[in-house]
Amino acid sequence: MRERLARVTLMRLAEPGDPVMGRLTASCGPEAAVEQVRRGALDAGFVHWFGSARHRGAAGSGDGDGAGAGDRLARILAAWAARLETADPAEDLAAGERTGARLVVPGDAEWPTQLDDLGDVRPHALWLHGEANLRFACIRSVAVVGSRAATPYGAHVAAEFGAGLSERGYGVVSGGAYGVDGAAHRGALAGGAPTVAVLACGTDVTYPSAHHDLFAAVRGQGVLVSECPMGVRPTRPRFLVRNRLIAALARGTVVVEAAVRSGALNTAGHATALRRVLAAVPGPVTSDTSAGCHRLIRQGAATCVTTPAEMTELVGVIGDELAPEPRGPVLPRDRLDPETRRVLEAVPARAGAGPATIAVAAGTDLETVLSCLGGLAAAGYVERTSRGWRLRPERPEGG
Amino acid sequence: MRERLARVTLMRLAEPGDPVMGRLTASCGPEAAVEQVRRGALDAGFVHWFGSARHRGAAGSGDGDGAGAGDRLARILAAWAARLETADPAEDLAAGERTGARLVVPGDAEWPTQLDDLGDVRPHALWLHGEANLRFACIRSVAVVGSRAATPYGAHVAAEFGAGLSERGYGVVSGGAYGVDGAAHRGALAGGAPTVAVLACGTDVTYPSAHHDLFAAVRGQGVLVSECPMGVRPTRPRFLVRNRLIAALARGTVVVEAAVRSGALNTAGHATALRRVLAAVPGPVTSDTSAGCHRLIRQGAATCVTTPAEMTELVGVIGDELAPEPRGPVLPRDRLDPETRRVLEAVPARAGAGPATIAVAAGTDLETVLSCLGGLAAAGYVERTSRGWRLRPERPEGG
Repeated sequence: MRERLARVTLMRLAEPGDPVMGRLTASCGPEAAVEQVRRGALDAGFVHWFGSARHRGAAGSGDGDGAGAGDRLARILAAWAARLETADPAEDLAAGERTGARLVVPGDAEWPTQLDDLGDVRPHALWLHGEANLRFACIRSVAVVGSRAATPYGAHVAAEFGAGLSERGYGVVSGGAYGVDGAAHRGALAGGAPTVAVLACGTDVTYPSAHHDLFAAVRGQGVLVSECPMGVRPTRPRFLVRNRLIAALARGTVVVEAAVRSGALNTAGHATALRRVLAAVPGPVTSDTSAGCHRLIRQGAATCVTTPAEMTELVGVIGDELAPEPRGPVLPRDRLDPETRRVLEAVPARAGAGPATIAVAAGTDLETVLSCLGGLAAAGYVERTSRGWRLRPERPEGG
Repeated sequence: MRERLARVTLMRLAEPGDPVMGRLTASCGPEAAVEQVRRGALDAGFVHWFGSARHRGAAGSGDGDGAGAGDRLARILAAWAARLETADPAEDLAAGERTGARLVVPGDAEWPTQLDDLGDVRPHALWLHGEANLRFACIRSVAVVGSRAATPYGAHVAAEFGAGLSERGYGVVSGGAYGVDGAAHRGALAGGAPTVAVLACGTDVTYPSAHHDLFAAVRGQGVLVSECPMGVRPTRPRFLVRNRLIAALARGTVVVEAAVRSGALNTAGHATALRRVLAAVPGPVTSDTSAGCHRLIRQGAATCVTTPAEMTELVGVIGDELAPEPRGPVLPRDRLDPETRRVLEAVPARAGAGPATIAVAAGTDLETVLSCLGGLAAAGYVERTSRGWRLRPERPEGG
């Protein structure tokens, strides 16, 4: 609980995606990080890292010598300390719970571990609001992004991708904005799969306000996600840092429509930096709103995709690459850890069973079962049907 | 003259692109090839090649053993001999001249030597009808191809490419058909550069007949090309073998719009086989007429291009690659042969001069000058302006 409070505090001290705070937290843990800010003195090791990191340019632009770095770190620390004075993490937690949101931190069963790939810019915690389990929704997921000022063509294609990915069992991640985002969420809702809207504001803030009904539907069948405390309004920098979460949550990102200066290309850049699949949908060369997509394709940064099936083909391959490396001639099942294997053996072949039933059969607890089922689904062993979890007919062993 | 008559005879004996006749002609020359058909006996060396080539599958499908190959070659020879009886090459030559066409054969100054890349399926000769010099028109040229059933979008883009390539000094090669071809030719005519229509029928046959005025305009500013004698009607196989000429004449091919079963993809395949640049224009993913383009892009067979400038960037690079390999630290001018260097030194820097003036200054004949200027233009040394040939300001030496 003290760690959760510390993480909620960190969400107030630094802007989302602040790599300096991220590094401090990674090096000493969230509680010690808050404590160092409180006493106004950072560990010598961290101060040394900051000085050398600045020489390498790793922590942003600015003065390049050790003394300049020291001054700059002092200013950063002072800003954190000023925010600490007004932070009230207990109230932040209570405010989230009042709205119906839940806090998820690294180590929780619902934490999407793929966010660890973000390194120092991993979020401290996430506020979630909605029926869907974020981790499960994202294990097999695709981010569908694009222009707010989508053309009717872009909105149509985004909805087709949302629905088609959803029907193929993929979660659809997007940013809840006008245009491509909204159409992708709506398509996913129609397709029946959970959809994940990653917001640049608190989960209790409806932005854009015209998406009130859409966000309600996402909460019902998917989940709203934010690294901001309740009540925080979106700003342009927050939209940009939010984009890294969209790219990091999904296996791959598809840009449906984007002008050459679209924010969607920022998300595309994050996907590339994270070595996730990046794809783009072509459009008429006479449409400026497709020019960003064409540039990505022409440069070889993105693969040209025209249908949801072409997209799942791409992320399916990456899914295999993410699976553990085979060590010699072993059956895939042998690569599972003992706990996961026990859960797999408790999953029925055809009828389908709920996680609680499987937990009893496997002799373990519900949280472990949920966690293992997620991994097993991602590896292709099991699938969730309307009547519960069951083995996939075409699972790795084949029989 | 006897070789020309022999080549005109060969145009009657075998279908265009027949690799067996092509090999026979390449091995012993056109006159000896006709003579062997006339006496009904082929050289032993060629018979041996045919037998072994059939074992390798190089000369098409059919029986796989030496005896079967012998039978098959006898049938081929009989078919050639039967056609020889009705061939009247002198009348074919006269008929062509009556329509205003001219015959060009390998070794002529106007012969486009890039056709030699076709090997055994190089045409025996070409009938040309039009004001433009085929070799010059194709030295810097792009083939613009696509669906006959082009959408308004495809026709618009084809016309834009035709005009834009033309304005950048590129000849535009296409097939004279409805849809993309016609729009590309019209765009090129508007842009002022020569355009080359490669037909699957005689140059005196207007197919499609609605292109009567278009073909007249091409003759006025460009050139009609065919490997068929006068009066020959187009057939489906002739369209397909014609496509190899379109791909081989141009430095690169761009597919503007093509369904997945479009004949334009056949041209694209020839471009790839000839290692020419292949590009495709994307379009709406909702349009079946762009699906062939998207497949080429997705497979990596074609580069995605959205503007004429992107296309010339691609073929410009290939142009450099086609230039002679540098051997050590030499100035580009040192790589030219003495005759070409003499012609280059006779080209004025700014004013522009006609080929005859340059021939006098260089102390050589007109045909040599025309041939050398073509190569110098391709290598970027000289350019043709409305007032004649002159040095290019940005030519390799820079000064």
